[in-house]
Amino acid sequence: MTELQSPAEIRQLIREGRWQQPTSGLANGYLQANLAILPKEMAFDFLLFCQRNPKFCPLIDVTESGSFVPALSAPSADLRTDLPNYRVYRNGVLTEEKDNIMDLWNEDMVGFLIGCSFTFEEALISNGIPMRHNEENCNVPMFRTAIPAVKAGRFEGPTVVSMRLVAEKDVVRAVQVTSRFPSAHGAPVHIGNPAGLGINDINAPDFGDRVTIKEGEIPVFWACGVTPQAIAMHVKPEIMITHAPGHMFITDLKSAEISVI
Amino acid sequence: MTELQSPAEIRQLIREGRWQQPTSGLANGYLQANLAILPKEMAFDFLLFCQRNPKFCPLIDVTESGSFVPALSAPSADLRTDLPNYRVYRNGVLTEEKDNIMDLWNEDMVGFLIGCSFTFEEALISNGIPMRHNEENCNVPMFRTAIPAVKAGRFEGPTVVSMRLVAEKDVVRAVQVTSRFPSAHGAPVHIGNPAGLGINDINAPDFGDRVTIKEGEIPVFWACGVTPQAIAMHVKPEIMITHAPGHMFITDLKSAEISVI
Repeated sequence: MTELQSPAEIRQLIREGRWQQPTSGLANGYLQANLAILPKEMAFDFLLFCQRNPKFCPLIDVTESGSFVPALSAPSADLRTDLPNYRVYRNGVLTEEKDNIMDLWNEDMVGFLIGCSFTFEEALISNGIPMRHNEENCNVPMFRTAIPAVKAGRFEGPTVVSMRLVAEKDVVRAVQVTSRFPSAHGAPVHIGNPAGLGINDINAPDFGDRVTIKEGEIPVFWACGVTPQAIAMHVKPEIMITHAPGHMFITDLKSAEISVI
Repeated sequence: MTELQSPAEIRQLIREGRWQQPTSGLANGYLQANLAILPKEMAFDFLLFCQRNPKFCPLIDVTESGSFVPALSAPSADLRTDLPNYRVYRNGVLTEEKDNIMDLWNEDMVGFLIGCSFTFEEALISNGIPMRHNEENCNVPMFRTAIPAVKAGRFEGPTVVSMRLVAEKDVVRAVQVTSRFPSAHGAPVHIGNPAGLGINDINAPDFGDRVTIKEGEIPVFWACGVTPQAIAMHVKPEIMITHAPGHMFITDLKSAEISVI
């Protein structure tokens, strides 16, 4: 697939079942998003949870109740078909992976699109700050912290952060660069000492993979989009549908356009 | 009243009925907020409306359904008593002004606190950019624009902007300074030509007062917190309670703390 294809063209390929891989590297420069679909009766509490935890749950778009169209971020898209892989959780348990959810969608559902780290990683890389997990061809290390999310209705639980290694000389620049993108988790939540977040072993991530830590590198922690899914699962909704990890929704929004300055 | 009093002390005075004036100039450096109280059954759509129109409706805090405590922004406060003056709208019509709403509050209500312009005006003033409406001792001029808000459920209608006059040499600085405060309407929505917003006569504001325009000054337009109230009223909810103009809610949050950078 060429990088010259538009988000709409790539979504069309996905819709036709011709692209079932992760979306990293597709439609460079465009915002990709995490997906969470929940029943309407939980939607107010979940929206409130996102509003109260904006670094962990930066909302890109929320559909009208019953609508599968993300009207603000990709008006020609269909959330039932336009992600390469979905996960279905019933009462908090993963029951299926599917390449579309035509048979599961109903009029009672609300779709939430939540910013993801691809955007700020692109910005870091273009500022000369490389991603160790890319170099080592694995997933970014993620950790459950001792810091609870701000509760909203039934939604509560610990926050999850992702960790990237930044050379000492580049730490200030990493803060500046990512501060521009609050819709994609924004500035770091913590720099340095993992114990400050209640992380006991930096070499034993709770999710993703361990990466090599080199001399003169500082661990820098960002709010992670796994948080809302982990917490929603904790609530055990009758049904919740998400993207499969790495298989994100590609919006029509350019990352550059959503920066705050 | 001295400026040395804390937000909690000032709210206590207000609660006891000992301060019934506008809150401008009180608790300098602390974030003040617009209030909108709506029935729970409209809360999801209104929250979604705010999320879709963040410059016009920057959410500071939303209460749990039935709670009058803004737990994130002022956990010791009571939204039923801690504003100096309230307005009650029934089916879209202003029916009463009250100094507390103890008798009207019920378990079915949700309170929304929305950022207000005091915060960015303080920042502009401290950057040497004066406010003409303060100099002329009147209200800021506000205009209905030709640009609709992004619809959410039943909530739709035109946006409202406030206008401030900025010397040509200070326009760039005004953009920089206010960009830091997305929770208080953020950067301007428009600079210069009023016709670009569908405003026909800069000397005939729809709300507030006309101010003097001097040679070499540029009209700069910011998203205005009147927007959500005007639009909610348009929907004619059975009951909606707001602050009376200028009689804001004083939070425990410092304006400096909520800036994005």
